[in-house]
Amino acid sequence: MPLGEFELIQRYFAEASTDASVILGIGDDCAVLEVPQGKQLVVSIDTLVEGTHFLPDTPADKLACRLLGAALSDLAAMGATPAWLTLALTLPTSSHQWLETFSSQLTRLCHRFNISLVGGDTTRGPLTLSAQVHGFVPSGQGLRRSGAKVGDLICVSGCLGASRAGLECLIRPDENISDIALLNSFYAPEPQLALGQSLIGIATSCIDISDGLLADLQHVLTASGDLGAELRVDDLPLSEEAISHFGLEKARQWALSGGEDFQLCFTVPPNRVKQLGRLQESVTVVGEVRQKQGTELQLQGEPYANGQEGYDHFSASVDG
Amino acid sequence: MPLGEFELIQRYFAEASTDASVILGIGDDCAVLEVPQGKQLVVSIDTLVEGTHFLPDTPADKLACRLLGAALSDLAAMGATPAWLTLALTLPTSSHQWLETFSSQLTRLCHRFNISLVGGDTTRGPLTLSAQVHGFVPSGQGLRRSGAKVGDLICVSGCLGASRAGLECLIRPDENISDIALLNSFYAPEPQLALGQSLIGIATSCIDISDGLLADLQHVLTASGDLGAELRVDDLPLSEEAISHFGLEKARQWALSGGEDFQLCFTVPPNRVKQLGRLQESVTVVGEVRQKQGTELQLQGEPYANGQEGYDHFSASVDG
Repeated sequence: MPLGEFELIQRYFAEASTDASVILGIGDDCAVLEVPQGKQLVVSIDTLVEGTHFLPDTPADKLACRLLGAALSDLAAMGATPAWLTLALTLPTSSHQWLETFSSQLTRLCHRFNISLVGGDTTRGPLTLSAQVHGFVPSGQGLRRSGAKVGDLICVSGCLGASRAGLECLIRPDENISDIALLNSFYAPEPQLALGQSLIGIATSCIDISDGLLADLQHVLTASGDLGAELRVDDLPLSEEAISHFGLEKARQWALSGGEDFQLCFTVPPNRVKQLGRLQESVTVVGEVRQKQGTELQLQGEPYANGQEGYDHFSASVDG
Repeated sequence: MPLGEFELIQRYFAEASTDASVILGIGDDCAVLEVPQGKQLVVSIDTLVEGTHFLPDTPADKLACRLLGAALSDLAAMGATPAWLTLALTLPTSSHQWLETFSSQLTRLCHRFNISLVGGDTTRGPLTLSAQVHGFVPSGQGLRRSGAKVGDLICVSGCLGASRAGLECLIRPDENISDIALLNSFYAPEPQLALGQSLIGIATSCIDISDGLLADLQHVLTASGDLGAELRVDDLPLSEEAISHFGLEKARQWALSGGEDFQLCFTVPPNRVKQLGRLQESVTVVGEVRQKQGTELQLQGEPYANGQEGYDHFSASVDG
């Protein structure tokens, strides 16, 4: 099978497009789409490259999870509802089996997250996958990085560092640690869409944790007018599996700087925390926004020295 | 300079985002965008891969022209007005000079075509460039491939085959043919946006010629209910430079099957041709839609045998 236009592999994805906002889906020069009244469109594009973001021979279904999970996480950070997906797939060969596996998983995920595949491009070359996700927010109400205020509580969802621990399992096969929960955190991040949507009108700022809590919190603080923060390392929600395989200290460092958690970090005025309702269960308060620039880490009330620097994706690990 | 997040190269592109429909541009998890009332959104994503779509060491400014020209051509085929652009750039190294050259040219083109860069992703890996273009069409009036009727005239814009002739100059350097007009057709295709917009309400179908006239016309005929066509090879608008360097027969074959012309092929009822007004000057009627399936080529009233098969991008030429 020669690798041709996206129409040729449309059949692999035909089931993925169902939404009424899709006036014209895959198969013309462009998709034709309609944004509902009272909504604004939010978009984000993400790329995964073999050897940089994932190891060679990563199964195609895991790549589908990784690609869509990471992309949808950006929608979650805006409080958006997913709508449409476009794909740019660069493939070294046009393997039926690869496409079948990838598209089956992608179609399942599209159904689950109620997002329609509306277009794409397939090209030949080194394995590279780009996904652009499109979602809706109520006009003027999308969450941003820029609204944090002094005194706001800093909250995170889920647990942090598990994805980085999962990567460790993959890149240190000689250490023979293979933990399904950790690998799953790496391969199949769960975008926090419901939480993001619930935070509209409650959170003053929000970001998804892709570069590590410290780096992403810094984005929020900078965008909010060069504020600072106090973070309580004791309170970080750590991965039990990461602690058990790699020890408490590594688990803490990865929670701070591990990256690719795809959890949300958001700020909320103290008096609004109770508005989170039952979402509070999946949320941990880890610190507070303050005027003084920089992020001060505390452990049991004492300053905590974080040994690990920021995170430049997997290039250092996978490339090197 | 380590290759980091898109924000880091935002400065290269900062001038590219200006439109009032851009509520929030580069720098958050998503861009926030607003589609004007009465408009539908049209989107298309296109990828260029080194070694497949362009030769190694192609200058970065030429890549910007090629990428945006080809992508905007899809908007032209829908009759759309350009609005927003997102980029996924995978780069082997993070060269200041490459980024400077690429982004300067891209910024110029964004201004010229009135399109705003609103987001992107930069990753490390083999040189791969994806662009998603977004445009507006009056609701329900976007041009499609599917509306051709028996008896409609088949029209093309500009001249055909010049881009393929330009590629020939590049891949056969030993033949020492270097024609600036032809190279320019290959590197800097001119998206037919004004023509496409004028065709709304006049053309019954429209497509941009990326795979070659024969292949793309077939897409129209198939989408319009498995119709057929008669094409007059005598009437094809050929590139004079292609004829002069490569001969009439090659120029004809490339006009039929060369690909990457990024001109428009559209159908129009005979009585509406005069509605094209002064646009008629840039348009050539080359045939007619008929009931009988298949495309019959004629030269001076006799059947014409086309020696060249369809076009599988540049992979055959550049890869092989």
